[in-house]
Amino acid sequence: MAKVLMKGNEAIGEAAIRAGCLNYFAYPITPQSEVAEYLSKRLPEVNGVFVQGESEVAVGYMIFGAAACGERVMTTSSSPGVSLMSEAISYIAGARCPAVFVNIVRGGPGLGGILPSQGDYFQATKGGGHGDYHMLVMAPDGVQEAVEMTMKAFPLAEKYRGPVMILGDGLIGQMMEPVEFPDDLYVEPTNKDDWATNGMERRGSSTKNIVKSLYLDPATLNNHNLLLKSQYEQMKREEVRFESYNTDTDYELLIVSYGTMSRVCKTAIDNLKAEGLEIGMVRPQTLFPFPEKAIHDAAAKESCKHVVSIEMSMGQMVEDVERSVKGKKEVTWFGQCGGEVPTPEAVMEHIQTLLNQNQ
Amino acid sequence: MAKVLMKGNEAIGEAAIRAGCLNYFAYPITPQSEVAEYLSKRLPEVNGVFVQGESEVAVGYMIFGAAACGERVMTTSSSPGVSLMSEAISYIAGARCPAVFVNIVRGGPGLGGILPSQGDYFQATKGGGHGDYHMLVMAPDGVQEAVEMTMKAFPLAEKYRGPVMILGDGLIGQMMEPVEFPDDLYVEPTNKDDWATNGMERRGSSTKNIVKSLYLDPATLNNHNLLLKSQYEQMKREEVRFESYNTDTDYELLIVSYGTMSRVCKTAIDNLKAEGLEIGMVRPQTLFPFPEKAIHDAAAKESCKHVVSIEMSMGQMVEDVERSVKGKKEVTWFGQCGGEVPTPEAVMEHIQTLLNQNQ
Amino acid sequence: MAKVLMKGNEAIGEAAIRAGCLNYFAYPITPQSEVAEYLSKRLPEVNGVFVQGESEVAVGYMIFGAAACGERVMTTSSSPGVSLMSEAISYIAGARCPAVFVNIVRGGPGLGGILPSQGDYFQATKGGGHGDYHMLVMAPDGVQEAVEMTMKAFPLAEKYRGPVMILGDGLIGQMMEPVEFPDDLYVEPTNKDDWATNGMERRGSSTKNIVKSLYLDPATLNNHNLLLKSQYEQMKREEVRFESYNTDTDYELLIVSYGTMSRVCKTAIDNLKAEGLEIGMVRPQTLFPFPEKAIHDAAAKESCKHVVSIEMSMGQMVEDVERSVKGKKEVTWFGQCGGEVPTPEAVMEHIQTLLNQNQ
Amino acid sequence: MAKVLMKGNEAIGEAAIRAGCLNYFAYPITPQSEVAEYLSKRLPEVNGVFVQGESEVAVGYMIFGAAACGERVMTTSSSPGVSLMSEAISYIAGARCPAVFVNIVRGGPGLGGILPSQGDYFQATKGGGHGDYHMLVMAPDGVQEAVEMTMKAFPLAEKYRGPVMILGDGLIGQMMEPVEFPDDLYVEPTNKDDWATNGMERRGSSTKNIVKSLYLDPATLNNHNLLLKSQYEQMKREEVRFESYNTDTDYELLIVSYGTMSRVCKTAIDNLKAEGLEIGMVRPQTLFPFPEKAIHDAAAKESCKHVVSIEMSMGQMVEDVERSVKGKKEVTWFGQCGGEVPTPEAVMEHIQTLLNQNQ
Repeated sequence: MAKVLMKGNEAIGEAAIRAGCLNYFAYPITPQSEVAEYLSKRLPEVNGVFVQGESEVAVGYMIFGAAACGERVMTTSSSPGVSLMSEAISYIAGARCPAVFVNIVRGGPGLGGILPSQGDYFQATKGGGHGDYHMLVMAPDGVQEAVEMTMKAFPLAEKYRGPVMILGDGLIGQMMEPVEFPDDLYVEPTNKDDWATNGMERRGSSTKNIVKSLYLDPATLNNHNLLLKSQYEQMKREEVRFESYNTDTDYELLIVSYGTMSRVCKTAIDNLKAEGLEIGMVRPQTLFPFPEKAIHDAAAKESCKHVVSIEMSMGQMVEDVERSVKGKKEVTWFGQCGGEVPTPEAVMEHIQTLLNQNQ
Repeated sequence: MAKVLMKGNEAIGEAAIRAGCLNYFAYPITPQSEVAEYLSKRLPEVNGVFVQGESEVAVGYMIFGAAACGERVMTTSSSPGVSLMSEAISYIAGARCPAVFVNIVRGGPGLGGILPSQGDYFQATKGGGHGDYHMLVMAPDGVQEAVEMTMKAFPLAEKYRGPVMILGDGLIGQMMEPVEFPDDLYVEPTNKDDWATNGMERRGSSTKNIVKSLYLDPATLNNHNLLLKSQYEQMKREEVRFESYNTDTDYELLIVSYGTMSRVCKTAIDNLKAEGLEIGMVRPQTLFPFPEKAIHDAAAKESCKHVVSIEMSMGQMVEDVERSVKGKKEVTWFGQCGGEVPTPEAVMEHIQTLLNQNQ
Repeated sequence: MAKVLMKGNEAIGEAAIRAGCLNYFAYPITPQSEVAEYLSKRLPEVNGVFVQGESEVAVGYMIFGAAACGERVMTTSSSPGVSLMSEAISYIAGARCPAVFVNIVRGGPGLGGILPSQGDYFQATKGGGHGDYHMLVMAPDGVQEAVEMTMKAFPLAEKYRGPVMILGDGLIGQMMEPVEFPDDLYVEPTNKDDWATNGMERRGSSTKNIVKSLYLDPATLNNHNLLLKSQYEQMKREEVRFESYNTDTDYELLIVSYGTMSRVCKTAIDNLKAEGLEIGMVRPQTLFPFPEKAIHDAAAKESCKHVVSIEMSMGQMVEDVERSVKGKKEVTWFGQCGGEVPTPEAVMEHIQTLLNQNQ
Repeated sequence: MAKVLMKGNEAIGEAAIRAGCLNYFAYPITPQSEVAEYLSKRLPEVNGVFVQGESEVAVGYMIFGAAACGERVMTTSSSPGVSLMSEAISYIAGARCPAVFVNIVRGGPGLGGILPSQGDYFQATKGGGHGDYHMLVMAPDGVQEAVEMTMKAFPLAEKYRGPVMILGDGLIGQMMEPVEFPDDLYVEPTNKDDWATNGMERRGSSTKNIVKSLYLDPATLNNHNLLLKSQYEQMKREEVRFESYNTDTDYELLIVSYGTMSRVCKTAIDNLKAEGLEIGMVRPQTLFPFPEKAIHDAAAKESCKHVVSIEMSMGQMVEDVERSVKGKKEVTWFGQCGGEVPTPEAVMEHIQTLLNQNQ
C-alpha cells in the first residue's frame, strides 16, 4: 500500500477504522481534538458511530457499554480527560472488557499547558484508577508506529480482555509524516460470543452473558484478582516490546528513553558516536509490560558505567529503570516537563557531565 | 486527655475537627460513610460546614475551592470515589493547595467488593491523576494512628501546600479502639495570607492572590514542575516515617508490610520468635515518601536471606521494595486481595516456605 | 398495508423510523422505557443511531446537536425526564431546530407514581422552559393515532423549525392495538440546507450556516421573538386539529376532553344517549394550537347549558377552555390525578349532577 | 429603620437574611450573580451557609435537601437556570417543602439575551416542572417591594409548605433605590417539627418524619393531589395581592401590567390624564394566585371599552387576563421582548390606537 502524508492524530483515527473499530466516543481536548474531528467525518462513511459525550466521565462509561457488547471501541483524550475516565478504566479492567484508550499527553499537573509531555507515565502504567489492575501500554515514537500500535491494540485488548492504552504526546499528534496502514495488522475478532452481552438470539445461545466487576464474596474476588494477575504475568512473558540502539558497541552509558524523546536521544547518540563516544539506548515500546530484562542486561554490560532515564517528565519511568537495573549500575534521571523537548545538545551535554562524574 | 472508645471512621472525623478542619465535603460510599454521618452531626456544633456533593467529581472541586481560600478542608471516600476525584487532585497539586484526602480502600478493580483492601497503593503513591505530582501518603495501622495521622495531615499539607492522603482500609474504618486526641498535634495555620484567595480586604492587602494550575509558557511550567519536584525531594529528606519491628535481632527474613496487614505480620513474627525463628519487619508509615533507605539497610543485614512484601493487594508496594533493596536480596510478594486479611498462620507458613527455598 | 398488533410504545418507535427518523437519544424511565428497548434493536437494522445519554439533561442536548445538523431526531421520556430537558427544549425552540419529543406522562408532581396521567398539560402547552416559545403539541387517543401523530410530527417540526411534542399517557404506551403505518405520511425533508450545520462541502456552499439562540442586541432579540410569535399565529391558523362527537344533536352539556380520557367520555356519552340525554364533546387533537373557536362555537349552542373539562389532572386544560368559552357558559372541571382513569359511570354521574344544578 | 441605598440584587440577599434564611445555594448567571456575590460575603458573618453547586440541577436538589430539614432556604437564578431546576421544583412541591426561588428573568428562549424580560410568566405561574403543582408567585415593581416580597416569601412558603417564587427582572436586580427592611415582616417559623426531617432527638420525638414525593398507590396520589389543589384554592382566597391605579375614574381603557413594566405604564397614565384621557390599571402583585376578580370587575366598568395586557413578553399574562375578563370586553396584548422596556410614549401611542379602533 502506498504511503500517505498524515497528521498523527488523523492517522490514529484512520488506523482505528482499519482495525475494525466502528465505535468512537470522545470529548474534545487539546492536543487530541483532531482525532475526534477526523473520525466524526470518517465514521459515518463506514457506518460507524461517533458520539461526543457530555463529559469524559460519560465517555468512559460509553466505552464500557460498547465494550461490554463486544464491539471494538476507542476513545482519545489528553491528560485531565484521562483522569476523569480513571474510574471507568478500573471498571472496564475489572469487568474484563477490551477497549482502546489513546492519551495524547499534555503537560500537567492540573490544567498545566497544552504542549507535549510524558508526565502521565505513572497514571498509565501503575493505574490511575483504583484496585489491582493494569493496562497494556504502548508508546509510539512517531506517526507510523502510532498507526501500527493502534491497529495492534484492538486484538491485544481482545486477547487479554482488558483496556489497552496508547501513550502518545502532542508532537506525535500534531506532526505530519508519511504513513502506510498495513492490512496484515487487521485481526478478525474471535472470542466475543463467549462473554459479550451481544444478544442471546444473535448467538443462538440459551445462556445469558453477564459483564460485571462486582464480586462481593472475598474468595471470589481474590480469585478474580489472581486471574487478572496471571494475565499480567502472561503479558510480561509475551508482549514486551523494545528497540535497542547502538547496543552492539562497548557503550559507556545506557540511555532509557521512549516516545518522541527517544528520537532526540538517537540524534544525540549519533552525534556523540561521530565524536568517538559510544552510548547505548533501550527504547521501551511497551511501558507495561516493561522491558525489565532487556534493560537489566544492557545495564550489566561491563563497559557501561551509568544508566540514565531521559524523560519529558520529572522522573517517573526512572523508577522502573531502577527496579530493572537492581543496583548493577547507578541510575539517574534527566529531563524536563513544560512542553519543550530537551534538545540533542542538552542531552549530549548531560551525558558528558555524567561520564565525567563516573570517571 | 482521657481515652474514648470510638469507631475508626468516627475517630477520623473527630480528629479532623480537632485539627481545625471546619470544611468537609463528601459523597457516601461503603466503607467510609460513617465519617460523613458523624461529621454531618458534629460540624454544625462547631460552626463547620458539611456539604454532600452531587458526585465525587463535584466533591473534588468543592475541596479545591475551599483549599484555594485557605480553609482547612477534608474529604473521605473509598476507591471508586477517589478515582472520580483524580482530576481534581491533580489540579489541587498543580495549584499548590493544601487539602486532606482519606481513602478507606475497598477491594477492586471496578465495583469489586466492600471489604478491606490495600489495592489503591499505586493510585495513592504514584498519582492517579495526570502530570508530575505526588501526594504525601500516610498509612495508619489502627484507630489511634489514624487519629494522629489525620491531625498531622493538615499542617503537613500546609507545609508543602499540596494534597495529603490518609490511606486506610475498611478494618480501620470499622474497628473500635480506645483513642485519645493529642492536643499538641494541633498546629495554627500560618502561611495562608501569602497565597490564598481569602480576600484582599481581610488581609489588608492591595494585591490579589491568584490560585491556578495553568502555565501555558513551557519554561514557566517546567520551573513550576521543578519547584514541585524540589518539594517531593524535601519530603524524602524530612517526612519519611516507619516502624522497625524485631530488627535488633539477626533476622533471617525481612517483611515489609503496612496498615492492618502489618498487625497480622507482628503476630506471625511473635509466634515464630516463640518457635526460635527471628523475622524482622519494616512498616512504612509514610508510603510516599517511601522509607527506601531503612528498607535497603534492613535488607542488607547479613543474616537476612530474603525480603517479602506482604500486602492486601496483588503486588504493588513490592515494586518500591525492589527499588529500595537494589538487588541486595531477592524480593518477592505475598498477599491476597479480596477482602479477607491473610491470617498469621498463612503468613507463618509462607515465611517457612521462603526460608526453605533459600537454604 | 396490513395491520399489526403492537404495544403503543413500540408503535411510536416504529412510526419514528417510518417517518425517516434515524437518530434517537433517550434515558430510561417508566412508563416509556419500551420505546428505547424497541429502538435499540430496530435502529441498527436501518443504520440508525441510538444513544442512551448520561441523563435527561445530556439527552436534551444530544437532540439539539442532531437537530442542528438537520437530522430527524426524537426522544421519548416521562414527566420528570421532560422537566430535566426543559432548558434544552427552550434552546431548541430559540435556535429554531426541528425535533420531536414524546412525553408518556405519569402522575406527579415529583416522583409521583408510574400510572397514567395528564398532569403535564401546562408544561407541554405553556412551555416548561424559559422564554417566549411554544411547542406544537399533539395528544393521541390510542395507538393508531399515536402512530399517525408521530409520523406527522417530523414534517411539522420542519415546517415550523421547532420542537413538536406528542403528549401521551401510560395507557397509550402500554396498550396493544392493531395498527398500520400509512406510507403516505412520510414526507421528504426539504429545507435543511438553508439553515442546518450539515457541512458546507456537502451542500456545495461557500457560506456557513450558524445555529444559535443567543441574540444580545435587544432589537434583534425582539425581532427574533416576533418571528417566533408569527409562527405560533400561523400554527393557530393552519394546524388546529380536533374531533367533534355527538355535536350534531341538541346537546345539553359540552365535554372537552382529550387522550385516553376522551375514550371514556365517549362511552359515557353513548350510554347517556341510550337513556335519552344528549351530550356533545370536542376532543382537542392539538393542545397547542388549542381549538379555541371550535370550543367557543360548540359552547355557544343554545341547547348547551354547561361546559365541563374532563381531565386526568387537577384542572389544567380547563383554563384554556375558559379562555375559549369567553363567559358564554359556565365552565367547570372534573377529573382525578393519581393513575386511575375516571370510569364512564363516574363521568355519567358527574354530568347528571351538573345538569341538575343548571336546571 | 433608616433607608439605605442598595442595588436590587443585594437588597434581595439582605432581605433573605432578615427573614431568617441562613441557607443559600446558587450557581452564577447574569443578571442575578450579585445576589450570590453579596451573600457569599454576608452569610458567613451570620453563621449562614452559601454553597455554589456544580450546576443548577445540583442547586435545585440542595434546596430540596435543606428544605426537607426544615431550614429556611433560598436560591436565585435567571431563566435558563430556572429551567434546569424545574424537575427539583416539582419534587419540592410534591414533597411539600417550603423554599424560596428568585428568578431575575432575562430574555429568551434559549440563551437569548441578558437584558430584562418578563418571558418566564408561564414557566412561573403554570409550572415549568411536571405534574399538578403551583408556586405562589410574587412580582415586585421595584427594590423596596422586592425586599418586602422576599421577606414575606419565607412565612408564605411555610404556611403552604411549598415553593414560592419571586419573579423579578434585570432592571429590578440592577437598579439602586433607597430601601428599608421592615422588622415586622420577620415571622418565627412554627410548624417544622410536624413534618421536617430535623432529627428525632432534637424534637424529643419517637416517630420519624418522612419527606417524599413518591405515592405509588393511585388513590393515595389522587388524595395527595387533591390536598395540593385545596391549598391552591386557599391561596386564591387568601393571598391575592394587586394594586389599582387610577381606577376611581371613568377610565376608557384598562391596562393590566406588572413589575417594571407597570412603572412605565403609570407614567403613561399620568401623561394621558394630563391630556384629559383617563386610563385605569390593575397591577397584579401576585401572579399566582391571579387577581381574576379584581380584573374582571375593573373590566366590567361601563366606561371601559377595552382591556390591554402590557408585558415584556410576547403575550403570556394576556391569557390569564382573557380568562378573568370572561368576554366582558375585548382583550389584547401589547409589548416587546428583547431587553428594551417599551417607553411611556410607545404605551401612550398604543392606547390611542386602541381607543380609535374602539370608537
